[in-house]
Amino acid sequence: MLAAVLDHDGQIIAHARAKTRGWRDDEQVFATIARVGHRAIEKAGIDQDQIAAVGIGAPGPIDFDTGYIIETANLKFKNFPLGPRVAEEFGRPTVVENDVNAAVYGEFRAGAAQGASDVLGVFVGTGIGGGLILNGALYRGFSKSAGEVGHIIVKAGGPRCGCGNRGCLEAVASRTAITRDIRKAIKRGYRGAISKSLSRETDQLSGKDLKVAYDSGDELVRKVIHRAARFIGAGVGSLLNLLGLEMVVLGGGVVEAFGDDFLDRIERAAQDTAFEINSKNVKITRAALGDDAGVIGAAMLAREALKRNAERRS
Amino acid sequence: MLAAVLDHDGQIIAHARAKTRGWRDDEQVFATIARVGHRAIEKAGIDQDQIAAVGIGAPGPIDFDTGYIIETANLKFKNFPLGPRVAEEFGRPTVVENDVNAAVYGEFRAGAAQGASDVLGVFVGTGIGGGLILNGALYRGFSKSAGEVGHIIVKAGGPRCGCGNRGCLEAVASRTAITRDIRKAIKRGYRGAISKSLSRETDQLSGKDLKVAYDSGDELVRKVIHRAARFIGAGVGSLLNLLGLEMVVLGGGVVEAFGDDFLDRIERAAQDTAFEINSKNVKITRAALGDDAGVIGAAMLAREALKRNAERRS
Repeated sequence: MLAAVLDHDGQIIAHARAKTRGWRDDEQVFATIARVGHRAIEKAGIDQDQIAAVGIGAPGPIDFDTGYIIETANLKFKNFPLGPRVAEEFGRPTVVENDVNAAVYGEFRAGAAQGASDVLGVFVGTGIGGGLILNGALYRGFSKSAGEVGHIIVKAGGPRCGCGNRGCLEAVASRTAITRDIRKAIKRGYRGAISKSLSRETDQLSGKDLKVAYDSGDELVRKVIHRAARFIGAGVGSLLNLLGLEMVVLGGGVVEAFGDDFLDRIERAAQDTAFEINSKNVKITRAALGDDAGVIGAAMLAREALKRNAERRS
Repeated sequence: MLAAVLDHDGQIIAHARAKTRGWRDDEQVFATIARVGHRAIEKAGIDQDQIAAVGIGAPGPIDFDTGYIIETANLKFKNFPLGPRVAEEFGRPTVVENDVNAAVYGEFRAGAAQGASDVLGVFVGTGIGGGLILNGALYRGFSKSAGEVGHIIVKAGGPRCGCGNRGCLEAVASRTAITRDIRKAIKRGYRGAISKSLSRETDQLSGKDLKVAYDSGDELVRKVIHRAARFIGAGVGSLLNLLGLEMVVLGGGVVEAFGDDFLDRIERAAQDTAFEINSKNVKITRAALGDDAGVIGAAMLAREALKRNAERRS
């Protein structure tokens, strides 16, 4: 969990972090959120009443009108009034946004996608998350839950996804999918640099484990990583055809670990997939803000909500 | 080729049609367009100067700013100034829009999707075309060529598509794909009601051929049609997750031939694919305007362009 205080120019002046585990109930989660927020303010060396507004990026689904978290897989929230509680705790207007949307918005307002009008953000880690900027604004759709790029089907009948489908992008190209494919090959007898990392009984291979094995020339790891890049490229290319995008921003642990070569492979597969008219002018690029994208995006959304409300009142 | 004259309320008052084949060059195509337009005006019983504006739906890609058709597969146009030539011919402001976008816009303004804000239109025929209404407006994207729902990959490594990819939605669920699968089974020895239709050496099975065999209980045809519906449903469900849509409008020859049962199968597969939050409130429905969707949509776009220009001048 990451909190930050930003100044009027959108620059981060202080950070605070907390681990996101071991909670018994939603009140414990909220207590951590409050603590990490207060700590960031303290580290910024300012008074609480110098804070203008609070923005939060949280796993969804979220009711944006009320600031309620409807449900989360990992945070023990179920119909929890996160927005109202944080607003009360800090005495300031508070907006709650989906965490991946907040990160994509951060990249749009202050990172790799500044100035672009139609942007897809894709974050490849344990899962695959995404968000959309369309016509220069965050696109949430009628359901308010758009952007689930990890759950478009790219290989019907393929591997089972955590969501229950077969062949979602997340089921063939996330770190979870990469680990599953490597584990399966090792069970079948494969031996290489990566075998030791998995024998440590870890749930998942880390980006670092994978990168070390990849760089040492582990054939299995190279094959699996290249395949993941091709799948991501096929997904990105499909969405170029669907959305005629100006920019695609790729981030998350796997992209950060494998860097430009991984990005080049994604880009080539995307260019192969999309029509020339939909691919020739697109920029496919790495996210620029790292872990800060979410707090920056959430802060920008809070600032803009404040401005809109002020305009409405005047 | 279809032309229509619409009154101020958007009601069609006359139609004219021409066959779209046998042309030697772009001037012959243009002569047909001009003739069918004049015939529609004549049949409407009005003078040409009572026409306020002309809207055209044409296969793309199109340069919307100039009204040039950049290229078409079937119309012998290459960098042809269709908009300017039609404007000259009829002495009226003319807008050119992608034909599928025009049809989706027609459904949005006067058909099945009236009042909805976030709409995907999917037309299943020889190919699979599509268009998007997002935030209550036609979405063209940065490339101006968004909406190619037929060319999202749903089965990576699957059958080859006309576009060169493998596993595009069009390559697994269009009438072309359905015909290919049936032809392959017949070559392998399958015999059923459909065998006779294909032995007539036709290029493609018609919707009617397929429907007759389907209704007579032809097992192969039923299996192939059901599979096509599942693929379309997987594609639609993927796009519910991506775009959080309010409505999906399905049309085209295959949908019209197979009707509500086909739609139900698509809907079930889409509901299975999408997250509950992205599927529970969506309406999946049949197009209402049939062949008229395109001319109605193009006329609406022409009328709105006229209004915008008038406002700009005043």
